[in-house]
Amino acid sequence: MPRALEGIRVVDLSHVLAAPTTSMYLADLGAEVIHIERDIGDDAREFGPFVGGHDKNRSAYFISLNRNKKSLVLDLKSQKGREVLRDLIRVSDVVLENFRPDTMEKLGFGWAALQQINPRVICCSICGFGHDSLPEYGSRPAYDMVAQAYSGLMSITGPEGGPPCRVGSSVGDIIAGLQATIGILAALRYRERSGRGQYVDIAMVDGLFSVLENAVARYVNTGEVPGPLGGAHPSITPFQGFQTKDGQWVIAAIGNDKLWAQYCELLGRGDLTDHPKFKTNPLRCDHRAELIPILQEEMQKKTAQEWFDIFERHAIPYSPINTLKQICEDPHIAHRKMLVEIDQPIVGAMRVCASPLKLSETPGEVYAPAPMLGEHSEQVLRDVLGYSRERVAQLQNEGVINKAV
Amino acid sequence: MPRALEGIRVVDLSHVLAAPTTSMYLADLGAEVIHIERDIGDDAREFGPFVGGHDKNRSAYFISLNRNKKSLVLDLKSQKGREVLRDLIRVSDVVLENFRPDTMEKLGFGWAALQQINPRVICCSICGFGHDSLPEYGSRPAYDMVAQAYSGLMSITGPEGGPPCRVGSSVGDIIAGLQATIGILAALRYRERSGRGQYVDIAMVDGLFSVLENAVARYVNTGEVPGPLGGAHPSITPFQGFQTKDGQWVIAAIGNDKLWAQYCELLGRGDLTDHPKFKTNPLRCDHRAELIPILQEEMQKKTAQEWFDIFERHAIPYSPINTLKQICEDPHIAHRKMLVEIDQPIVGAMRVCASPLKLSETPGEVYAPAPMLGEHSEQVLRDVLGYSRERVAQLQNEGVINKAV
Repeated sequence: MPRALEGIRVVDLSHVLAAPTTSMYLADLGAEVIHIERDIGDDAREFGPFVGGHDKNRSAYFISLNRNKKSLVLDLKSQKGREVLRDLIRVSDVVLENFRPDTMEKLGFGWAALQQINPRVICCSICGFGHDSLPEYGSRPAYDMVAQAYSGLMSITGPEGGPPCRVGSSVGDIIAGLQATIGILAALRYRERSGRGQYVDIAMVDGLFSVLENAVARYVNTGEVPGPLGGAHPSITPFQGFQTKDGQWVIAAIGNDKLWAQYCELLGRGDLTDHPKFKTNPLRCDHRAELIPILQEEMQKKTAQEWFDIFERHAIPYSPINTLKQICEDPHIAHRKMLVEIDQPIVGAMRVCASPLKLSETPGEVYAPAPMLGEHSEQVLRDVLGYSRERVAQLQNEGVINKAV
Repeated sequence: MPRALEGIRVVDLSHVLAAPTTSMYLADLGAEVIHIERDIGDDAREFGPFVGGHDKNRSAYFISLNRNKKSLVLDLKSQKGREVLRDLIRVSDVVLENFRPDTMEKLGFGWAALQQINPRVICCSICGFGHDSLPEYGSRPAYDMVAQAYSGLMSITGPEGGPPCRVGSSVGDIIAGLQATIGILAALRYRERSGRGQYVDIAMVDGLFSVLENAVARYVNTGEVPGPLGGAHPSITPFQGFQTKDGQWVIAAIGNDKLWAQYCELLGRGDLTDHPKFKTNPLRCDHRAELIPILQEEMQKKTAQEWFDIFERHAIPYSPINTLKQICEDPHIAHRKMLVEIDQPIVGAMRVCASPLKLSETPGEVYAPAPMLGEHSEQVLRDVLGYSRERVAQLQNEGVINKAV
């Protein structure tokens, strides 16, 4: 199959999660991503789970994020290493990094320098507070958790009354990574028209703040400060999880009064339908504290599967609250091919999450395993940069790049 | 300033949140987005908060999401309305929709029909389980909460031991919306090379499943089923929120043993540094239940601001857990111009969240207010489709489009 980003080359100076998410999307769409690593490798190579023993080429975390990419081990502290990087930037379309804000400048690859090396290059940086930030913020280390906390997202996530909870996946990194991908694709389009590259400055805090949607609209327009609501919806009741007889959870999403009447019947509680405290959604929201325990008691009388069958037959919107085991083994996920098997060097066959970009002609694909540390160093220097065999051997001997793996 | 997507026209049949997020990103980047609404308007026009009274043109929720777009009221149940839509598709680049999976087909605008109308058109659909889905899933109504529950995300969000919590913003809709934007931009790039459009099939459940990162890697490689961990990190301790003297929360992110020693000193608990149960991160994780109450007691002895000052001085990674009030009034958000004022018809001056796409040449921008219901109907038919004044007047009289607002 053809790929949408064929012909695009990315110099990927990223590590761990935010920018590697961006280069994963670009690689899944067919860009050639050259992931530059230190001799000890991307920190993510040390993150478990490990498949078959602790080793830099066995981290399932790293492998999942870096499929389809190439690995070039390059010593950027050496003058010769930086020369190789300069040569690569000269023949690339995108430079991607998520160092602390001053690192690229210190290495000699700040935006002004990049433009001199390649006026068509697009540079995308991801950091916690943005490159253009107040001085006291710019240098702060940016963990996902800092972005989740700082942005306000944690303050609206968790059980009612607190404590604030972290979202269980690193959405501070990932959402910034998605927004960076959009920024780069937009910049590529603009370059087709103008011939010019540009700088894309993505901040994890901006990214999460921009997805708070109604919470921001509510505060800036009414002054109301929303808090966490557990598993419930802020303005529809009942629209939340209930625990069932077998301890599993079921979401019942009763979005209107007609569904409410049906739901009461199915619960054997027709008496609630026209109850003066519960008969409309605003009333149910007002009397939530009284209503939910009543419903919870009824929902406890059947197993999750019994409720699913009943709700399915009567078109009541519902969902299980799937565990990771349930969703990974789910027939729908199988049908959508959202977990795919790769043949990973050293590790063997293993499953990774597929691309959610289901395009009919150029879908996001997992077409290659993740690279072993430094697997492509020699190939990149020979094939992409046209270095002679002797020059490559010398760089290997001097430790600027690794020897063949 | 130039805009990256100038010259791209989007027929936007979306409603509420998932696909409107996509068209917001496209419009912020300069695409001409023609949002087609029923006579009663996008459902989101009925979602509060309302600015200055309940009215379809006063929903802050709708306005925030639909800035920069045009509104065309069109009766798709009438033959003449569908003819107008056909004419629009003929001169557009992208069709975007988040109806239930069978709706476009029923209207006569399934993918085969769209290709006949315009072989260059890109169609992007967003729904809960995807257009290509198992029969019993495809027809299920897709609320954000269903996607959060079904995907497994809720099962890893919330306090340790449960109950599962919803992420406080509708990330099921929004992440699918971001992925759809990436899919559309990739399809536009492919079209530049091939001349052909394609179909982009985005599922909210795929979208969230694909961002679970390490939770999926853990389950598929070790069989371990991760659960929620409250405000804590699964593999670093302490790396979480603590409540302080004034009731405010502070995140302390103690990522290594050197920071641990400093942190213990600052807490006045140098005795913990080399304590046999706490001296390394694996030990601290193992004895989390014992350690955290000790630290919480110490953190309670000073106010949040006192801790921020201490941590800032000693370069301890930290963050407040900002409320919506704190983040919306934050100097960093002001510096990044993440809240911008628009002059909204009827409503007047109001603030909306800006684009996180900070591109140096073609940034995402809020350059126009949200449309009043049907504000651009006449303009679109006259200027985009070249209909005569008489033909437009007749369509108005027949109620196919609205009269001028």
